[in-house]
Order: sequence, then C-alpha cells, then structure tokens
Amino acid sequence: MPNPTAAMLVIGDEILSGRTRDSNMHYLAQELTHKGIDLKEVRVVSDDRDAIIGAVKALAETKDHVFTSGGIGPTHDDITAECIAAAFGVGITIRDDARALLAAHYDRQGVEFNAARQRMARIPDGATLIENPVSIAPGFTLENVHVMAGVPAVFQAMVASVLPGLVGGAPLLSQSLRIMQGEGLIAGPLSDLAADFPELSIGSYPFQRDGIYGANVVIRGADGAQVDAAMARLSRLFPE
Amino acid sequence: MPNPTAAMLVIGDEILSGRTRDSNMHYLAQELTHKGIDLKEVRVVSDDRDAIIGAVKALAETKDHVFTSGGIGPTHDDITAECIAAAFGVGITIRDDARALLAAHYDRQGVEFNAARQRMARIPDGATLIENPVSIAPGFTLENVHVMAGVPAVFQAMVASVLPGLVGGAPLLSQSLRIMQGEGLIAGPLSDLAADFPELSIGSYPFQRDGIYGANVVIRGADGAQVDAAMARLSRLFPE
Repeated sequence: MPNPTAAMLVIGDEILSGRTRDSNMHYLAQELTHKGIDLKEVRVVSDDRDAIIGAVKALAETKDHVFTSGGIGPTHDDITAECIAAAFGVGITIRDDARALLAAHYDRQGVEFNAARQRMARIPDGATLIENPVSIAPGFTLENVHVMAGVPAVFQAMVASVLPGLVGGAPLLSQSLRIMQGEGLIAGPLSDLAADFPELSIGSYPFQRDGIYGANVVIRGADGAQVDAAMARLSRLFPE
Repeated sequence: MPNPTAAMLVIGDEILSGRTRDSNMHYLAQELTHKGIDLKEVRVVSDDRDAIIGAVKALAETKDHVFTSGGIGPTHDDITAECIAAAFGVGITIRDDARALLAAHYDRQGVEFNAARQRMARIPDGATLIENPVSIAPGFTLENVHVMAGVPAVFQAMVASVLPGLVGGAPLLSQSLRIMQGEGLIAGPLSDLAADFPELSIGSYPFQRDGIYGANVVIRGADGAQVDAAMARLSRLFPE
C-alpha cells in the first residue's frame, strides 16, 4: 500500500518579502519522512484571502493531509482560520472549549482576556482542536487540513500534538555516499543503477568546495534490503 | 502601475524529504523585493515530470515571471529542462552555443566532455541562455520562465545574470518596530492603524523569548511618506 501523501501551506507575507527565513518547512519535512507520510508539495502564499482559499482547496482535494503554518494569531493580518472555514463552506465562531482554555491561561497570567485575544478562540464549525502547550491558543484540524501557528516553537509543539494521531506508512529509508568526482563523471553509472532499481529514488546533489567538485548520492526507498543492495553496488562503482 | 508579479518553483526531492534545507527561496525573495518585483507564491515539488509541468503551467499563466531552481545538472534525476520544454510544447535539443561554452570549459580543465555533460547543453527551442560564471553550464529563459540551478552559489550567480534585464517596479519599503508586549494587547490599535492606511501592508510577527512576549511590527509599502507617517503613529502608540 502506498504511503499517505501530504502537502504543506506556509502563509505569510514575511516569507515572500524575504524578511523572515521559513524554518517550518524543513522541520515538517523531516517529521513526515520519519512518520512515513510522503510530503509531495509545499506552497507559500501571502496573507491574501483568495490566495489562501485557493491553495487550501487545491491541496486538500489532491493530498491525504494538508498542514498549514501561520496566520492564526490575534492581529488583523491573521486570517487563516476564516479562510479555512470559507474553503470548506462552514461557519466560524468563538468556541466555548477554546475560549475556556485561553481564559484560564490569561487568568493565570493576570492579563486581560480582551477582544483581540478572544479572536484566537474562533474555530470553524466541525473542527477538532490541536493542543498548544507553548502558548495555549489552539490550532485545529478541519477535514484533512491541520492548521497550526507560524512561530517555530509553537508550530513544532503542534506537529507533536497532531502526528501521533495520524496513520503513517513505511518510513522512507535513505543512505548516502559522498563521491569526490564531478557529476558529469558519475551520471552514466548512476543512470544505470537507477534503471536497475526502479522502486528506489536515487538522487545526486552536487557541491563545489575550494574548487573541488563532488556529489552526495542519496538512495531512498521503503525496502531496506533494496537500499542496501543498491548502496553496495554504488560503493563498488566508486571506491574511496 | 502595479509592480510586476513573480512566482518561484523549487524542484527537488531532497527539500521535500527534509534532507536539505532550501536557501534559494529566501535569497530570491530578498532580491525581488529590492528590484520591485512582487513574489506572490512559491511552490516546492518533487523530481516528478507531471508535478513540474503542472506547476510551471499554472504559475506561468498567472504571474509575470516564474523563477525555477534545481534539476538542470547532468544526472538522470535532472529533468527540469525537458519538463519546461513540454510545458510550452516546444522541442529540446543540444544547442551549439551551449555546447561550445561547455566544451571550452572542460577543455580548459582537461576533462572529457562526455555524454552526461553534453546533456547540460540541452536547451528548449526558442530559449535564451542565462550566464553561469560559477560552473559554466547555462540556465535559460523560455517565455516568462527563468530556469536556474539548485546549488546556491550557482543559483545566486544566475539570479545576478537575469535580474538586470527585467523591468522592476517600486521597491517595497519597510520599517519595523519591536514592541515588548503580547500581540493580544497591540492587536486593537494595529487593526485601526491598518484601516487608516489601506495602501500599506502592516504585519505583526510575534516572538517569545525567556518567557517574555513581544512582536515585530513591520509596515511595508511603495510610498515612503505613507510608511513614515504610519510608523510615526505606531511609535507614538507604543513608546519604548
């Protein structure tokens, strides 16, 4: 059975303007690989209603899971929750359980639970909450879309809340070999190797350092014995 | 006149598997912002023919420019050039000018210009070459799609070759203010400020460090006087 598929949607002008360097994509990619869920696509869109709704619809229709990051805080530019509701044609209201979580949190901190903060309790109808042990304001799952915060510490905590509840597949195994030759020399043998192991993904990632050309060749697959066999052949082709 | 729009397409299994952290997106985002070209969307897809062709078509139809990174080397997993040709319905052949560049390069290095290396001279019909001062193998521009390498040093050199030839717009100006209060407190005043300056983009990027909550508020726009006016008001609302 093939692994479940996933897409990620990163929401935020700050990434597209170059002000902030996204780190959530790399984190989620690693976690999904361990879980055996195949991340097939990532999109980054701005804080724009039509762009968010369009991307959510396109990705939710074609992938088993969609993970979003960003745009669920209390400020005017945080429009993700209402866009997700609109994408699925459901309503969105301040929900009692989310409000209770936040009210208790701000009460403990001695901070007013004002209108802006109550905005973070707005949850689309039919969603389940995603726990946020870092800053309490919850994410949510609606259908196959998991909506999480953009702040990396909070995003990571929410991923840790969501992933155990999902069905994974065979974790992608990988082995790599660093070859100190230019890609132009190794391309022929690599192509033959890929043809002999059609179920494996064999990638070549070139580098150049101090004028020396090399490549990291990565062999990936779900079948450990096949990965071993291909790597053994590769090591014989390119002994150190 | 609105600024030209752009999208980026990052091609590579190594990003989606979490093995490699993409850095080209952040670099391009900053360069386009300086140039006055608005980066509206980024997609990351795997080394899959249908995924690449589908994304190129969708982005080229809706944006003024598409910039791709990755998949133009000599190995079997480098399929970007033929996918771009297929997306535009044109042929692809080894082209004399590209072959001459590469032949001279490998001749200088005393290295055989073998079949794999000649693959890097395959250029879609009607494309213009993008200069690569780092490792010679050229990128290319076909219609509104600029196809570049994934290795960061080469990607950056190709961006430097392409951007001067493009028409830019008004560079996006930005000013930011660090406010040492939780977003829940600043959300109300920020929302009013955004309503009073509808042509500006006002974003709030929260952080939490050593238990202290704060936010960087960024005001962006093409009109410097408006950015100044909004920032002056924000500074009065939240004095240090």
